[in-house]
Amino acid sequence: MSLSRRLFAEALGTGLLVCAVIGSGIMAESLTPDVALALLGNTLPTGAILVVLITILGPVSGAHFNPAVTLAFAVRRQAPWGEVAPYILAQVAGGIAGAALAHGMFDLPVLQTATKIRTGGPQWLAEAVATFGLVFTIFAGIRQAPAAIPWLVGLYITAAYWFTASTSFANPAVAIARSFTDTFSGIRPFDLPGFVAAQIIGALIGVAVAAWLFAPDRPQEQTA
Amino acid sequence: MSLSRRLFAEALGTGLLVCAVIGSGIMAESLTPDVALALLGNTLPTGAILVVLITILGPVSGAHFNPAVTLAFAVRRQAPWGEVAPYILAQVAGGIAGAALAHGMFDLPVLQTATKIRTGGPQWLAEAVATFGLVFTIFAGIRQAPAAIPWLVGLYITAAYWFTASTSFANPAVAIARSFTDTFSGIRPFDLPGFVAAQIIGALIGVAVAAWLFAPDRPQEQTA
Amino acid sequence: MSLSRRLFAEALGTGLLVCAVIGSGIMAESLTPDVALALLGNTLPTGAILVVLITILGPVSGAHFNPAVTLAFAVRRQAPWGEVAPYILAQVAGGIAGAALAHGMFDLPVLQTATKIRTGGPQWLAEAVATFGLVFTIFAGIRQAPAAIPWLVGLYITAAYWFTASTSFANPAVAIARSFTDTFSGIRPFDLPGFVAAQIIGALIGVAVAAWLFAPDRPQEQTA
Amino acid sequence: MSLSRRLFAEALGTGLLVCAVIGSGIMAESLTPDVALALLGNTLPTGAILVVLITILGPVSGAHFNPAVTLAFAVRRQAPWGEVAPYILAQVAGGIAGAALAHGMFDLPVLQTATKIRTGGPQWLAEAVATFGLVFTIFAGIRQAPAAIPWLVGLYITAAYWFTASTSFANPAVAIARSFTDTFSGIRPFDLPGFVAAQIIGALIGVAVAAWLFAPDRPQEQTA
Repeated sequence: MSLSRRLFAEALGTGLLVCAVIGSGIMAESLTPDVALALLGNTLPTGAILVVLITILGPVSGAHFNPAVTLAFAVRRQAPWGEVAPYILAQVAGGIAGAALAHGMFDLPVLQTATKIRTGGPQWLAEAVATFGLVFTIFAGIRQAPAAIPWLVGLYITAAYWFTASTSFANPAVAIARSFTDTFSGIRPFDLPGFVAAQIIGALIGVAVAAWLFAPDRPQEQTA
Repeated sequence: MSLSRRLFAEALGTGLLVCAVIGSGIMAESLTPDVALALLGNTLPTGAILVVLITILGPVSGAHFNPAVTLAFAVRRQAPWGEVAPYILAQVAGGIAGAALAHGMFDLPVLQTATKIRTGGPQWLAEAVATFGLVFTIFAGIRQAPAAIPWLVGLYITAAYWFTASTSFANPAVAIARSFTDTFSGIRPFDLPGFVAAQIIGALIGVAVAAWLFAPDRPQEQTA
Repeated sequence: MSLSRRLFAEALGTGLLVCAVIGSGIMAESLTPDVALALLGNTLPTGAILVVLITILGPVSGAHFNPAVTLAFAVRRQAPWGEVAPYILAQVAGGIAGAALAHGMFDLPVLQTATKIRTGGPQWLAEAVATFGLVFTIFAGIRQAPAAIPWLVGLYITAAYWFTASTSFANPAVAIARSFTDTFSGIRPFDLPGFVAAQIIGALIGVAVAAWLFAPDRPQEQTA
Repeated sequence: MSLSRRLFAEALGTGLLVCAVIGSGIMAESLTPDVALALLGNTLPTGAILVVLITILGPVSGAHFNPAVTLAFAVRRQAPWGEVAPYILAQVAGGIAGAALAHGMFDLPVLQTATKIRTGGPQWLAEAVATFGLVFTIFAGIRQAPAAIPWLVGLYITAAYWFTASTSFANPAVAIARSFTDTFSGIRPFDLPGFVAAQIIGALIGVAVAAWLFAPDRPQEQTA
């Protein structure tokens, strides 16, 4: 399919994903004082929409919706390096449009500056773990059960929202988009570099572990 | 299959869907003061019953249960225009019967007049977005993973309940039926035209985007 | 497979189902004062265990776990009438054992007498609707997507817990077993006959509607 | 695949599983005073990550992540006895590393000593039931629907978290790892032997029941 349509699919998918993340956060926060319940109301829509978007847009663009994933495909030489920059631009642009759309639906200022502080070693560790797990899940899933990828990613993120201290952004484009909302799911722009760096490190570890674990056995191993 | 049975399937499916939406709203609202929890108790049954109903009635009638979806199929020339009116009538009649059934089970007046106000630009934007997403999911899903359609729709609506400010009616027949209940999921009759118009606009945009994205590549694109 | 093993499968499955229903009700009620949250903690395990039990025991015994379903199969002449009584006995015995097991795990008197009142027209209507939907889902599912039956039943019950006013017992054996627990999911023994009668009526309507909807088209219909 | 890579997969899988269990427990407990909601925030990630991990690592190592399961495979002569000890060591080591990782992400002392008391007959009964159900689900699932095993296990544990009084550890390696956390999901080291013994008993009963139920019919039975 033409690059322009693939970029549109990446922008559309990232946009709807961000719209779901931010919109459900606003909805949840407005309906309950209980933060665990709000996180649940943020988690379920995110996991559900990921299954949908990856199923319907995967055959178009690969359904990365995530610069860390695009980078990982390029590192594995499964995507051309020349497409990395346009993919990332489409993801970031789509994500910011998704933030604006969520704000429009909830009658809030279209673009805002987040003030929620998300920084420090434990948060960065959480983002590295979250992105490692996501990337490892994707490449192990492609090998073991490619048709299940949409479910694997949706379920992985559903889990990671809760078991990582950062609620698992695991996605530089979504992180950037979330810096434009001063609501439940926001992240202070100042904290973006730490998150993005941790995500990229996690993604690269994910690529390395998958490469090692799924490399062909050496002859002497096959008899072990 | 004969038209009469297909219409019965549309009425039965829309009726059970509305019964699930309204009934679970009544149940949830009666059990908790927390609105996020009530919305969760409204969301899960709606998503779950959609997967069931579309799986078992899809092969009979297409399992539209939704005038906006029927209209979208007709616009794509995948359903005869002559069946649009009977389908919509069956959906609306089934939906109202479903509202009555829910009220009967919960020992409430059989048909009521909703007083919940749902109006204004942001709500209409939300309905347009919700219906765009639903229709795009359906037509992209039919192309990419037709067997997964029941899950895609159930998961999409599960997400959209939370990320759209209107809790995603996305369905004129369900909206009309919900104007007959003065409970959690009701909508004031006066607000119906705005919702229905927004839904139809969203559906048409969904048809247009799907048509463009999945059109055959032009020759010069294939080399891009 | 031999009848004795099939009966064991029915008893084991019904027992684990009842154990999940009663046990999760006890757990939920002990952890929260919010009844909607307790119902959610009761719903998810019930839906989840149904998917599991029907998948693994369906090929053994048909995984009815439910006298209303066994009766429906017999009415459709898809199960021998001579096996109806032994199936029902196994289901009821297994269900009561499951109640005892749940009580044992939660350190409660092994068998109790329920005091929760569940009676009256709206409750009976709810049970008839719940069982109609269950039986229709099963027979429509067998026709349209037999491999999906475990999911369809699990999702249907997940929804019906919330949209029926009775929380959808929809099963005479489970209802009898639940009369032996004076906890969240109990039902007063005095109220059993009304529930069971409503369930059987609902099941028979489900059989009738499925038979009509999926009957072969008559010649004059095929041209309609 | 070489034993070293299979052991790595067992360690990685058990580690991520424990990380999800402990991490989500910490997250949930920190966000809400409602224990049922905390358990829900603990349940969903555990069930979800199990589906993911078993799907992507099953083809590598069998995805036991559980000494009771490894033992059960050996008893059935479907795994070599010589690999039982290395598998268990990998599982326990991975699990403890997972506990440390969860603590690191939430900025807590890396390894802790649990103080939560989990003992007594009802708790042991609960663990025996939980592990019986898990092992029976696995071996019945392998026979009836091997491709569905990841879902069956994820759904079974989702249910068992709620219907067993112990919240279903059902796994000696995970129990040991959870003795290193003094948070929501901890277990006092002193209580480990009772839990592990109950788990092994439950697993052996699961093996026995599955063996009997799925044994070939004897000739005289086939005519019954």
